[in-house]
Amino acid sequence: MLGIDPGLVGTGWAVVEPAAGGGARGGSAAVVIATGVITTSADSALAARVREIYDGIVDVLAKHEPALVVLEDLYAEYRFPRTALLMAHARGAICLAAAQRDLTVVALAPAEVKRAIAAHGAASKAQIQMGVQRLLRLSAPPRPSHVADALALALTGLSRRGGRLG
Amino acid sequence: MLGIDPGLVGTGWAVVEPAAGGGARGGSAAVVIATGVITTSADSALAARVREIYDGIVDVLAKHEPALVVLEDLYAEYRFPRTALLMAHARGAICLAAAQRDLTVVALAPAEVKRAIAAHGAASKAQIQMGVQRLLRLSAPPRPSHVADALALALTGLSRRGGRLG
Repeated sequence: MLGIDPGLVGTGWAVVEPAAGGGARGGSAAVVIATGVITTSADSALAARVREIYDGIVDVLAKHEPALVVLEDLYAEYRFPRTALLMAHARGAICLAAAQRDLTVVALAPAEVKRAIAAHGAASKAQIQMGVQRLLRLSAPPRPSHVADALALALTGLSRRGGRLG
Repeated sequence: MLGIDPGLVGTGWAVVEPAAGGGARGGSAAVVIATGVITTSADSALAARVREIYDGIVDVLAKHEPALVVLEDLYAEYRFPRTALLMAHARGAICLAAAQRDLTVVALAPAEVKRAIAAHGAASKAQIQMGVQRLLRLSAPPRPSHVADALALALTGLSRRGGRLG
């Protein structure tokens, strides 16, 4: 399960798999296989930055061969429309990379992710980070926030597939 | 010169080259080499649609080998934010296809295109179509509008490179 938090400046990604035992007896709900952030420089042209993100995701897909890709769903009301439009360029390239491997892309609503990770649909960023930490039995909240968000997406994707979040 | 009007439902494209004589003696300012619209079905998943647009543009780039790609610049105030976000997915895939061929992508402000084609920055869609028709000495306004917009972008791109619009 690959969760991706698309962004032009930084795209976070996280590969997680269900834990053996599936969170029973206080164990972790899932195992983190790998995480990373693909960053691009504002000095580069938009097309070059989109290409860097595409190349990075192509590498992740080739290396980890996830069965499913989970992204945050689009919603129309962004506070920063231009930033959202740039994000959507990155998201398009990510969708393309997934489609080229015939992978299904699942889009999850932010509220659904928040409910799965922090038990209510209006959870703060910090509550999401703590929720991810608790579910994965991490010693500290995951950082940076792009990775925390990618982990939250991947964990929610797992819970949807019948996995149980602890 | 390849002008592209990105859209998820339909992406218009137009390849134009400067006319021999460059619009002198009442001739056309440029010659249309080829135009087309890449359409995708709303029944398909977003990732599959982005892939169709990417594949279509890859084909156009391979066939016509333009020296430059011209797109409309991003602006933040769209009337339909969700449509704009979907457009940006397509635009990201188009930028990627150009970057993979080391082509420069030029982004032109809508007002600049309108000034170049219809002599004022607040021209209507119909004025743009008539301007394109006049500059290219077409017997009718170019249709569909995605192709007209792609032609307008390509022509403006040509004029910027020192070509003269008639």
